[in-house]
Amino acid sequence: MNPIGLISIQFVRPFTRENFSVFSRMKSLGFDFVELLVPEKGELDLAETRKALEDAGLGIVLAARVNLSRDIASSRHEAHRGGIEYLKYCVDCASELGATIVGGPLTGSPLVYAARAPEPVAEDERIARKDRCVAALKEAGDTAADNGVQLAIEPLNRFESDVLCTCAQAIDLLDAVDHPSVNMMLDTFHMHMEEASMPESIRRAGKRLVHFQANENHRGFPGTGATDWTAIGRALVDIGYTGPMSMEPFRRNDDRFGVPIAQWRAPHEDETAKLTAACNFLHSTMLLAEHRR
Amino acid sequence: MNPIGLISIQFVRPFTRENFSVFSRMKSLGFDFVELLVPEKGELDLAETRKALEDAGLGIVLAARVNLSRDIASSRHEAHRGGIEYLKYCVDCASELGATIVGGPLTGSPLVYAARAPEPVAEDERIARKDRCVAALKEAGDTAADNGVQLAIEPLNRFESDVLCTCAQAIDLLDAVDHPSVNMMLDTFHMHMEEASMPESIRRAGKRLVHFQANENHRGFPGTGATDWTAIGRALVDIGYTGPMSMEPFRRNDDRFGVPIAQWRAPHEDETAKLTAACNFLHSTMLLAEHRR
Repeated sequence: MNPIGLISIQFVRPFTRENFSVFSRMKSLGFDFVELLVPEKGELDLAETRKALEDAGLGIVLAARVNLSRDIASSRHEAHRGGIEYLKYCVDCASELGATIVGGPLTGSPLVYAARAPEPVAEDERIARKDRCVAALKEAGDTAADNGVQLAIEPLNRFESDVLCTCAQAIDLLDAVDHPSVNMMLDTFHMHMEEASMPESIRRAGKRLVHFQANENHRGFPGTGATDWTAIGRALVDIGYTGPMSMEPFRRNDDRFGVPIAQWRAPHEDETAKLTAACNFLHSTMLLAEHRR
Repeated sequence: MNPIGLISIQFVRPFTRENFSVFSRMKSLGFDFVELLVPEKGELDLAETRKALEDAGLGIVLAARVNLSRDIASSRHEAHRGGIEYLKYCVDCASELGATIVGGPLTGSPLVYAARAPEPVAEDERIARKDRCVAALKEAGDTAADNGVQLAIEPLNRFESDVLCTCAQAIDLLDAVDHPSVNMMLDTFHMHMEEASMPESIRRAGKRLVHFQANENHRGFPGTGATDWTAIGRALVDIGYTGPMSMEPFRRNDDRFGVPIAQWRAPHEDETAKLTAACNFLHSTMLLAEHRR
């Protein structure tokens, strides 16, 4: 059965040792693992955090955070190297925390959250970006292999990345990287915007898929939006996907004019019932998809 | 029958007098109107453009372009006034071109295309933004009324605006504006990301809806993505929507790694067959939704 997880920023951001009680809360809500942003240096004591996870009986998947100074796609040498070193740092964190997957927009080139506007890209620069990503992922992939970790590149929507937005683009890159420790993840929030058919894309990803984020089209609780979860569950079963599925339903339900929807906000209500329902919903969806076979 | 239109940047950007032949081309593809970006001062001779439209037998709907110096939500007096003056300028252009609808993100506050990152907004600033938008839309609405023009505010996705992203937010604002010449439009591309249910939101918009953009979830040709057009057509018929429907399928089909999807690119192939098919598809969808009643 696929482990179901929840991102820590559902409750709090940034995450510090004062928030360790979130782990047992997640466990009691029915979640199997926490999706934790890779802690910046000094943000968390990793041994202590691992102990807190073990005490709560909770697994962990890591989500990498890139920016313009850690950007493997960048033409600036320092940013490119910064990106590679960061990926290796992520692998080290994973080892110390007992995580085996580091996912996220590892390919860099952030747009809206880095206050960058979409710009045209010349063909030679497009190819150069790809070459830089391939070299970086091969190098970081070796470190990952040494530590029993999988790196999972993530296509983001067109407003969050200008290099990697679709499953087909990810396959294009992975074919060039050709490294057993470098694979991909998919997030239905982004797929909803970029893929012609989410089930088709899942089937195309196939064995390359090592992590999955089950988010509603509007990033609210799974089951409250427009996503066809039955079709997605069946596609995941068809490719034999037994990996983790995490939820990030941190869009708060608030449609007053002027509330900025892309900006993270703290919860304004007790979300226990919704989180439990969404967790059960994903479990049930996957079980029923399995039963259909 | 709803007039079906196509945005001019499907073919070319920027649009100048050298491109007038696009009008008859659109007409021959089956479109009833062009959706034209409001020309900047001096970009087009408006009388000449109107004549070219009439010669081609094509209608017109205008799409406004805002930026940080024409931004009715802004706290900077100059930008706020610039936004109001721009909306009045749009109405003047509409009058001269024979258009009766000016739609778009009239509420300003652009994000990714203005290289702005989503930031937290304090509650007093949120209310102040709303007050500024209300005052501006009342003032521009009077100009619109004098010219027989409808202003249509447009919810954009969370990465393109931080004030107006959902149908519910639009209704919240319109209730406060309370002006017969200020209404709303909806674009299924943005709705796909932000609405829990597109048909429910269309029904909620009801008589406030004066313009509609029929775009696929990935902004490719309608019918090539994940949108449930049948359900959308039925909702539009249910609210008695007889207004224009325009297409903006300018995402080009190209999934090589590093191709920036949010950046406009010129067509790289003859799209005649796809455009004709998409136009017929929308016509048929609406007719069949009507027949179902």
